[in-house]
Amino acid sequence: MPFHPSVGPPIVSFAPLRLKRNEERRLRAGHLWVFSNEVDIAATPLTAFSPGQLVTIESSRGGPLGTAYVNPRSLICARLLSRRVLGNADAVTALLQRRLADALTLRQRLYRTPHYRLVHAEGDGLPGLVVDRYGDHLVMQVSTAGTEALRDAVVGALVELLQPAGILARNDGFGRELEGLATGDPQVLYGSVPEFGQVLEGGLDFTVPLHGGQKSGWYFDQRPNRERLRAYVGDGRVLDGFSYVGAWGLQAAAAGATQVLCVDASAPALALLSDNAQRNGLGNTVETRQGDAFDVLASLLDAGERFDLVAVDPPAFIKRKRDAEAGMEAYQRLNRLAMQLVVPGGFLVSASCSHHLPEADFRDLLRRAALPLNRRLQMLERGHQGADHPQMPGMPEADYLKVAFCRVL
Amino acid sequence: MPFHPSVGPPIVSFAPLRLKRNEERRLRAGHLWVFSNEVDIAATPLTAFSPGQLVTIESSRGGPLGTAYVNPRSLICARLLSRRVLGNADAVTALLQRRLADALTLRQRLYRTPHYRLVHAEGDGLPGLVVDRYGDHLVMQVSTAGTEALRDAVVGALVELLQPAGILARNDGFGRELEGLATGDPQVLYGSVPEFGQVLEGGLDFTVPLHGGQKSGWYFDQRPNRERLRAYVGDGRVLDGFSYVGAWGLQAAAAGATQVLCVDASAPALALLSDNAQRNGLGNTVETRQGDAFDVLASLLDAGERFDLVAVDPPAFIKRKRDAEAGMEAYQRLNRLAMQLVVPGGFLVSASCSHHLPEADFRDLLRRAALPLNRRLQMLERGHQGADHPQMPGMPEADYLKVAFCRVL
Repeated sequence: MPFHPSVGPPIVSFAPLRLKRNEERRLRAGHLWVFSNEVDIAATPLTAFSPGQLVTIESSRGGPLGTAYVNPRSLICARLLSRRVLGNADAVTALLQRRLADALTLRQRLYRTPHYRLVHAEGDGLPGLVVDRYGDHLVMQVSTAGTEALRDAVVGALVELLQPAGILARNDGFGRELEGLATGDPQVLYGSVPEFGQVLEGGLDFTVPLHGGQKSGWYFDQRPNRERLRAYVGDGRVLDGFSYVGAWGLQAAAAGATQVLCVDASAPALALLSDNAQRNGLGNTVETRQGDAFDVLASLLDAGERFDLVAVDPPAFIKRKRDAEAGMEAYQRLNRLAMQLVVPGGFLVSASCSHHLPEADFRDLLRRAALPLNRRLQMLERGHQGADHPQMPGMPEADYLKVAFCRVL
Repeated sequence: MPFHPSVGPPIVSFAPLRLKRNEERRLRAGHLWVFSNEVDIAATPLTAFSPGQLVTIESSRGGPLGTAYVNPRSLICARLLSRRVLGNADAVTALLQRRLADALTLRQRLYRTPHYRLVHAEGDGLPGLVVDRYGDHLVMQVSTAGTEALRDAVVGALVELLQPAGILARNDGFGRELEGLATGDPQVLYGSVPEFGQVLEGGLDFTVPLHGGQKSGWYFDQRPNRERLRAYVGDGRVLDGFSYVGAWGLQAAAAGATQVLCVDASAPALALLSDNAQRNGLGNTVETRQGDAFDVLASLLDAGERFDLVAVDPPAFIKRKRDAEAGMEAYQRLNRLAMQLVVPGGFLVSASCSHHLPEADFRDLLRRAALPLNRRLQMLERGHQGADHPQMPGMPEADYLKVAFCRVL
């Protein structure tokens, strides 16, 4: 067949952002980010763009690499939305709609009830946007100026796709500060969102705080690991060192533990946990103790208490690279305490959500924690974030959650 | 209290194997191996030991590090059995009994039916020994001279612990050659072992070849990943590129796939697979095709066939370090073929059991496989060997199995 070039209206597109020579390689390899030192600022000065503005990324020779949004104030100065050149705002809205629909299709395949992370930023092709779904209520976290500029379009697309009862924006992310966005209280963007939401997981029914809780209210990322936990729980005693509203502890109780002690620094979290235990008929099994996990674990150890399984899923001890040494030391200290509380042959389920702690280092600090105790450690299973936290294959830095299922002999 | 040194009979122990200065560090850090260049051969010549002989490992200053067995013919010239100094053969037998009992306790906690890897060598504190359990029948793989020398004691301990109907030794491992052990046909060591055994997994009933199959008959290591597979299977078409006797394919059929095409190079494996499908009431769903996976996948692609999920769990393409480049290329080619056979939005479940392929490199070759196809890849979940394949925390080299659950958009 002869070749017929397509004929149509001239392509309109957003202002160009030109890269320096060879700086298109990361994007071509599958990554979505442009760093500010990669931009040819002589050709396209970053200062000429406003935060969140849509652009067409070009290689040094002018070849189009796709459509992105820009933030001249951020080290990551542009994030790719599409590898196609989108002509106008309508095309961007259509892209958002497609990406959200793709995200929903995946979750509907994998989960029986509508409680999951619906959108996981770059992993769902929507940089800067996280949406957690609590049935009819959505909680959004917008962490970039570009997505903030698209917020109304995102809300519109979510309403069209899901007809939710309400959408809440949590504006307290660390990412917002880096992008120069205002931080503050949660804000209802659509409909109404109650103070508390519901999560059904593993046959249990949890009430979680949507406006004032940790993350968006629930740690969806740990779901597959909490499912695995159940296989390890026999009919013994379980200790949950960082219980929050009971995600791990109640699964342990439901799996047959005779007693579960849940420790958390937050009294409101423990109050909710007790309600959750009662509602699921586990009130007689689950106890709570308020306090700093390090202190409580040390005093349990002194008191001679021992457990058949200890779970420690702490907040990130290494929030920035410069915290690495102190954070490693804290993880090691915590895990050494936890191991000492495990009966011989019992289990330790240990997690780290620190981006800056590679899994190999995490496993190695568990080894070092065990050494002076003269306890033999078996590494049984490795856990990671669940499938509703997808990742781009070219962005391994998005891999943050590590769980080690160990036996302590 | 005043210090009372313990008084008792003089400690009898095995002949010493003395390490060079500082060469005790790896053992002290939790590892179990001694390499031949670490031995002080002036003090304790390796040539003076017979293959499999029991020794007491000593640091350069004579401090005891534990009890090991030796093979002067092997690069790994000693493997630690215990960090204690064992006085005689009875103490070693008692150690074997304890380690086997510990191994069994773990599996009884984790699995409802007696089908699992019962002993996973170093990870269960029993270097050189693998035991797979098919109900009343055990299949042993002995890969070191030290464990070969202890074989009768191991068999005795297994009989006492489990009262099995039979124990079979598979003598075809690559490790045996490295240790200078004879390789050959399987050998019944106790009772009787039928040609075929049974595995119950995920609600399905499999017949597997114990005398002539791959590995010991079944790939127990993939169990948790086959369990995860079920969540991804909808009501569409599934392709299993390396089906063996149907472990992945039948789980897909049981999870609701309308059609499952199982490909394998082995006609006997496919015959067993068809029997397995029939026995589980899945005969109408499961089809087989004999042939080389690369060829069959390419011809399916040419014929325009497409699948909602493609699983590729091939044999190790990288058996030795020097195969790394060719192996990576083969993995990439295979996965590119597999991705092209996936409908947009469908799933690829891809595995590699090559020791010499780090997980990061495996994930990166999936990225490279997708690049020229212009398909967006989402990495959803990571799988590893199951909990019946425990690992020592100080021996990360034992981490070999990697599974990537991906969506191909």
